[in-house]
Amino acid sequence: MANAVNRQVTLAARPANYPKESDFALIESPTPEPGEGQVLIQVLWLSLDPYMRGRMRANHPYAAPMDLGQVVVGGVVGKIIESRTPAFTVGEIVDGSLGWQEYAVSDGSNLRRVDKDLGPLSTALGILGMPGMTAYFGFLEVGQPRPGETVVVSAASGAVGQVVGQISKIMGCRTVGIAGTAEKIEYIKNDLGFDAGINYKTENVGATLATACPLGIDVYFDNVGGPITDAVFDHLNTGARISICGSISQSNMDEPEPGPRKMGLLVGKQARAQGFLVSQFSNRHEVGRQRIAGWIKAGLVKYREDVVEGLENAPRAFIGLMQGENFGKLLIKVSEE
Amino acid sequence: MANAVNRQVTLAARPANYPKESDFALIESPTPEPGEGQVLIQVLWLSLDPYMRGRMRANHPYAAPMDLGQVVVGGVVGKIIESRTPAFTVGEIVDGSLGWQEYAVSDGSNLRRVDKDLGPLSTALGILGMPGMTAYFGFLEVGQPRPGETVVVSAASGAVGQVVGQISKIMGCRTVGIAGTAEKIEYIKNDLGFDAGINYKTENVGATLATACPLGIDVYFDNVGGPITDAVFDHLNTGARISICGSISQSNMDEPEPGPRKMGLLVGKQARAQGFLVSQFSNRHEVGRQRIAGWIKAGLVKYREDVVEGLENAPRAFIGLMQGENFGKLLIKVSEE
Repeated sequence: MANAVNRQVTLAARPANYPKESDFALIESPTPEPGEGQVLIQVLWLSLDPYMRGRMRANHPYAAPMDLGQVVVGGVVGKIIESRTPAFTVGEIVDGSLGWQEYAVSDGSNLRRVDKDLGPLSTALGILGMPGMTAYFGFLEVGQPRPGETVVVSAASGAVGQVVGQISKIMGCRTVGIAGTAEKIEYIKNDLGFDAGINYKTENVGATLATACPLGIDVYFDNVGGPITDAVFDHLNTGARISICGSISQSNMDEPEPGPRKMGLLVGKQARAQGFLVSQFSNRHEVGRQRIAGWIKAGLVKYREDVVEGLENAPRAFIGLMQGENFGKLLIKVSEE
Repeated sequence: MANAVNRQVTLAARPANYPKESDFALIESPTPEPGEGQVLIQVLWLSLDPYMRGRMRANHPYAAPMDLGQVVVGGVVGKIIESRTPAFTVGEIVDGSLGWQEYAVSDGSNLRRVDKDLGPLSTALGILGMPGMTAYFGFLEVGQPRPGETVVVSAASGAVGQVVGQISKIMGCRTVGIAGTAEKIEYIKNDLGFDAGINYKTENVGATLATACPLGIDVYFDNVGGPITDAVFDHLNTGARISICGSISQSNMDEPEPGPRKMGLLVGKQARAQGFLVSQFSNRHEVGRQRIAGWIKAGLVKYREDVVEGLENAPRAFIGLMQGENFGKLLIKVSEE
């Protein structure tokens, strides 16, 4: 049974640079009634991801911006608690982009059934969900790693980076991760099997890359952009591939900072930088999901989640995500399974 | 018969930003004698190309820098006037990277026989030589144009750009060129068949691109880097390809100027930027040469040369090339054929 009240987090203001708590509002609405052909979903888990920051801008380069007052966008895992369609039965677990709220109605068109046998439900938002598919396809298809090559991944302990690094090891690549705390570096090296880690907050990234990548860099999986990416450019090998997943270093700047013009370096290196969206591989996500699930079962891939309890804590957790304070895939536990 | 004196242009100083005449020295040396197994070549044509500026730096990103006092590097077409090897006979025409001088000896390993039937000898340094191959492979293989797409090429009347634009028309693409004088714009539109031209010195490139590319940009062949490339980024279509040939806007800066960070835009556009060197396609240059020669014979491709007489005028002509003062493929006519 649903509560009568649906707590929701809405966008109260467009953030100026880094978001702050007053950019969000926690409001209460009546829990919606599903109409004919619809279901009511109780949200169990909410995923917090860097892409959300872009959607808070008035001008988004490729997706619709959020409106002020709108429930903040976000992927969730939830349980069907009422159904007025034969397509879904009460108790089924689904995921979909239903936003930062405790209940949502849907006609089912934006829902995907979660296979509970593949892993805990939360993994449908992480390693077996959008971030995992981002890592799988963005690394393998765009980065095209070959055995023996050297791979560098930034935001290496994050939801995407941790998966990229482990797939890189499976592919037989020397794997170097960049992250922002000593604990994250220890984790990727000791728990995830990265060959080396660079703490960009305490080390000179350029100098440490030279040591960590004695044969140069063949694949760079770029989650951050900015000065870290600049440093990587100076160590690219001939034929290198940069898989551009995101630019979190730039996401929180209203006016993007200028930087050195490095693109010309791609000429001499006969190298490429290629952006991608996880959606462009959507017809094969199921393949990636099954493959990662198999690796997890075989003990070849681990994952780390950073779980925060309670929808009301989503804004603060998201602000932390933008500052790199999360450690692993950031999730809000909205209600008990 | 060779003169006793070999005039040569050497690198007298490493240019600070744009090169100036005092960075070069015109010297006279004894014309060399070919040793056993060598030939003596009289230079007929010298090619001046933007890549030379990079080789004048103390630190070159991918090739050996020139030494001070060294004959400036450059491709030439010349005639064998003495031969002490059965591999070449007197009177044969060859091309090779023999430098800014009137005579050179070679053991033949760096020479290629020029097929006089394909076109005038000078074309072996232009449309049927390195610039032509750069255009052919860099556009078709890296840019991967498809019929009906929109192609933008910068430095559009130059040795490479003019060929890219005409191949683009042959491929069935809407073709927009960017150049720096009204005469160049008229030329690429009226003589070469470009659909539109943008004078970057008198027009707002971003605004004019929007008009000239109503369906967005699918392929950008980038000869210049810098602000023009920044403007192109804002008009890329989903799946766009940037073929990076060079960055002449940056070549003459000792300290590269900072610019807006645009690489993150490749994500939403699922687009790529790829650098290349003409040498990476060297095993197929002959294919490209024959194909372009066929197009010239069929009247589908034209070419324009900017000929300066006399080796002594090479420094001034090269300085002009760096400022965009040439109009077509820049060549020095060193001696009569």
